[in-house]
Amino acid sequence: MPQEIPANSVGVVTPQIAIFNEPLELRSGKILERYELMYETYGELNADKSNAVLICHALSGHHHAAGYHSTDDKKPGWWDSCIGPNKAIDTNKFFVIALNNLGGCHGSTGPTSINPATGEPYGSDFPMVRVRDWVESQARLADYLGIEKFAAVVGGSLGGMQAMRWAIQYPERLHNSVVIASAPKLSAQNIAFNEVARNAIMSDPDFHDGHYLKHDTIPKAGLMQARMLAHLTYLSDDAMGEKFGRDLKADQVSYDYTPEFEVESYLHYQGKKFSTTFDANTYLLMTKALDYFDPSQYYENDLAKCLSHAKCKFLVVSFTTDWRFSPERSEEIVDALIEADKEVAYARIESEKGHDAFLIPIPRYVKLFTAYMERVAKELAL
Amino acid sequence: MPQEIPANSVGVVTPQIAIFNEPLELRSGKILERYELMYETYGELNADKSNAVLICHALSGHHHAAGYHSTDDKKPGWWDSCIGPNKAIDTNKFFVIALNNLGGCHGSTGPTSINPATGEPYGSDFPMVRVRDWVESQARLADYLGIEKFAAVVGGSLGGMQAMRWAIQYPERLHNSVVIASAPKLSAQNIAFNEVARNAIMSDPDFHDGHYLKHDTIPKAGLMQARMLAHLTYLSDDAMGEKFGRDLKADQVSYDYTPEFEVESYLHYQGKKFSTTFDANTYLLMTKALDYFDPSQYYENDLAKCLSHAKCKFLVVSFTTDWRFSPERSEEIVDALIEADKEVAYARIESEKGHDAFLIPIPRYVKLFTAYMERVAKELAL
Repeated sequence: MPQEIPANSVGVVTPQIAIFNEPLELRSGKILERYELMYETYGELNADKSNAVLICHALSGHHHAAGYHSTDDKKPGWWDSCIGPNKAIDTNKFFVIALNNLGGCHGSTGPTSINPATGEPYGSDFPMVRVRDWVESQARLADYLGIEKFAAVVGGSLGGMQAMRWAIQYPERLHNSVVIASAPKLSAQNIAFNEVARNAIMSDPDFHDGHYLKHDTIPKAGLMQARMLAHLTYLSDDAMGEKFGRDLKADQVSYDYTPEFEVESYLHYQGKKFSTTFDANTYLLMTKALDYFDPSQYYENDLAKCLSHAKCKFLVVSFTTDWRFSPERSEEIVDALIEADKEVAYARIESEKGHDAFLIPIPRYVKLFTAYMERVAKELAL
Repeated sequence: MPQEIPANSVGVVTPQIAIFNEPLELRSGKILERYELMYETYGELNADKSNAVLICHALSGHHHAAGYHSTDDKKPGWWDSCIGPNKAIDTNKFFVIALNNLGGCHGSTGPTSINPATGEPYGSDFPMVRVRDWVESQARLADYLGIEKFAAVVGGSLGGMQAMRWAIQYPERLHNSVVIASAPKLSAQNIAFNEVARNAIMSDPDFHDGHYLKHDTIPKAGLMQARMLAHLTYLSDDAMGEKFGRDLKADQVSYDYTPEFEVESYLHYQGKKFSTTFDANTYLLMTKALDYFDPSQYYENDLAKCLSHAKCKFLVVSFTTDWRFSPERSEEIVDALIEADKEVAYARIESEKGHDAFLIPIPRYVKLFTAYMERVAKELAL
């Protein structure tokens, strides 16, 4: 039954494909001869092409950031709360581009695509991509769309790392970098969580060294396990306590190993859903891109020196109960930007929602994000 | 090559077996017709049997808490830092009993034992045990050894829950309860971590519904996965940062999925070691005992009301960077004890070692633990 599309939605959107035939040399030294990027756009590109905003997605994200794919869609894109007419990223003013990153599993070239060299899916032969490779491929997408300079590059979590990398890699090509719930690099604990998730996937007998599609199977159990773990770390102890507490599904415990507490059922549900919709090799590759990210390593581990190459302004946002990328990690970025004499606005948002808070329309967060983007529009006379 | 046994060690110790033929009705309603408990003792029981201290172990612990099993042993028991002559639990004064809990895999009756009903290992037919069942079986061990009342019941983490349960269940049978790095009940996040670990084990195809021994195999991959995750949560972000940082094993990244960062290798090593030495069904059962523990549920969820039944004194200890059982959780216990008008000493120990801190001889921790136990000895005229 078709639903009523809300008035402040970008409405029904259609994903598009951009094809790139110029080889892309990756940081690893490997070369992708050709690749495709799936993307969506919201709003209208203005005449002088000065109103474009690039949205970079996080680990499990994709190009469908706002609106609906049909009037039958139950849920809008993943960041619909912040993208649309009169929303933080106001599509009455901005032309918004959201893509699925290279190596993804939502339409862009990635491990599930056909490897032209073999005629079979790449599987684990798909080369590892790093954040800088994503920025490079995103810059080519900008060229393809005729955009010389972005009004803003925006992202949360791993997306925030891309926004930060843009500022260093293509300093002339963005006016603003919006870095939300992110970190300048992963801590040992962050890497450890990623490795435990990877181990779950790779030790699933259905993984077949990453060539599971050839074996006509997917490592569902491993992917479910990885997602249950990751999902749990995106929530705060407080948020889980408030949402589930120690509530049981039944009146009393059953003394068996089926999920008994509500929180267990919830994680099983989330894990199961993810395990049939996300590609395991993409998951591995995205976590490695996270682990490897550390732009300061090329500048004597001096983040200020690294960020001194930026020419844009910055908005940095963190959330109090985010323990994957705590406010302290965002404050490392802010401190380095101040040391590098860059313009930076910073907000530490009170929230009990953990890392996931960046996807949630928390009033103070939305308000300041909106105000920042209004200033961006004003400064560019949009 | 035999090593020199340190002078402040209890020396070479020999585990003993206590056999119980009186049926034990468990909280679940199931009955164990007979069972055995493996235990060790250190020091000498005095004439009036007033100097006994019971050590309760945590999830992966066992009866070998102190000393060496032979002069060839490379490592002493798991709490050797706190048990021995002139140590916190001074074996010159106290007679210390450490046991492997029912359901364990280190010699006490558990899932790897032969089920008399079938002549095969119990496997997953071994009944679930709860903390109160452990306390019951420990009380019978005390009877067996002729101990009417313990000078102290002591434990860390899940062991602390047993020490707390003792105070409520057998208030006349202990003078002191020492509750270290513990909590009055698990939070939703705690339960979630346990369920993710269980899911890893149970989704291993070698698990065979818990009857892997019959299939002549063990769910090694699942157990390794569970341990990697758990181990990671026992350490603090700071401790991992200090120990491993982002150090690589090689000079540069290899762009493959072998462990590249030192922290990954470490977790793999820990997980692998554990997967061949610990029983998967015991792991499941111990995590369920943790999840179920919540003595206040029988007292209108009022912990003070629950603890008002205690007649002993308490020492409660927490560690600043322990995020599995944070200081706030210990302080819930302390607050309830104060409300219930009980005598309680509390220390929040500065440490970067996370949950594992309770096993580490941190000077301030050892000093106050020693002082407390000296007072215990004095009050009992030992």
